[in-house]
Amino acid sequence: MKIIDISMGINNGMLVYPKNLRPNIKKSKSISKNKVNQSVISIESHTGTHIDSAYHALSDGWKISKVKIERFMGSAIVVDVTKAGAIISAEALSKFDIRPNDTVLLKTENSLYGYKKFRKDYASLSISGAEYLSSKKVNAVGIDYLSIEKYMGDISVHKKLLRNNILIYEGLILKGIKPDRYKFIGIPIDYDGDAAPARVFLIK
Amino acid sequence: MKIIDISMGINNGMLVYPKNLRPNIKKSKSISKNKVNQSVISIESHTGTHIDSAYHALSDGWKISKVKIERFMGSAIVVDVTKAGAIISAEALSKFDIRPNDTVLLKTENSLYGYKKFRKDYASLSISGAEYLSSKKVNAVGIDYLSIEKYMGDISVHKKLLRNNILIYEGLILKGIKPDRYKFIGIPIDYDGDAAPARVFLIK
Repeated sequence: MKIIDISMGINNGMLVYPKNLRPNIKKSKSISKNKVNQSVISIESHTGTHIDSAYHALSDGWKISKVKIERFMGSAIVVDVTKAGAIISAEALSKFDIRPNDTVLLKTENSLYGYKKFRKDYASLSISGAEYLSSKKVNAVGIDYLSIEKYMGDISVHKKLLRNNILIYEGLILKGIKPDRYKFIGIPIDYDGDAAPARVFLIK
Repeated sequence: MKIIDISMGINNGMLVYPKNLRPNIKKSKSISKNKVNQSVISIESHTGTHIDSAYHALSDGWKISKVKIERFMGSAIVVDVTKAGAIISAEALSKFDIRPNDTVLLKTENSLYGYKKFRKDYASLSISGAEYLSSKKVNAVGIDYLSIEKYMGDISVHKKLLRNNILIYEGLILKGIKPDRYKFIGIPIDYDGDAAPARVFLIK
């Protein structure tokens, strides 16, 4: 059994989406004064690798704490859309064997660039792609950048996915990951919110 | 397959260890103004269900980000020490079939009280108990309260466990959990720190 971590570590210097707060991790207690080291972690809910809940885009949407835990584990397919350009359409996705309850991880051209500096022209899912995944009744969709939706988009892609009860994983690291089927574990912290930092693993 | 969540949700009113910061989760963006809801989460690293790293108690200790991910999954044994009183000793633990690489979850009398208000006389692991678990070469030890060590202790129990490379899970919810062997998944967020909030599951 091989376990691959496809989530990113959180640190104060990491890339965040424009207008989001940068993490602020600082020491709150120290061994010399308090017998122990402790920290305070301040992060925006959409920092690093995270899951969006419906409440992110829909005023009456479900929150992270309402998601059944069984949905955080299951079957994933990593699809190679690195040559599909910056807009991942239904057509690009139709080439893959996507099954009901799959967690579909989009390995796009973003994986060539990584998370060094923010790129406005990052690859994202189109509304046709969101409709296609909805029709396939997938469990979740994930992407190798900080948003599933194009920069300054109208949130319609988020709304389409979330209305159809599809979880959204953003901020995945898929560089070096072979397109294939895997067992998937993608676990957020538990609070009543619009999104939550998550740790995500593929198991082969 | 049955998955049981033994971690607690994070909220602003939750119980925290004395002198620790209470969580501060607040809205940072709203659909009416920003098209989306977002939050800022500020928490002390030892909030709710969490893992301690060696750096919590040892200046030169390993941090959470250095723990091999394989150690967050494995075999757990929930041991019933609800009748063992407030100090869990080597003798109390010697009755159980504890094996190398086990994650040992101490179901103590704390599970009768829960996390409503802070109790200074919470059940905790003794130094003899920590020595016993070290001799058994366990992977991790977990407890059903906010610290593995007695209130105002000298941190010797933490140091013993962490020097022996044993992970410490604190803030587990074991009420209603049948003492037995389980598959275990206990996954922290990833940062270079002294402790991290974790989501912990038992699988049967």
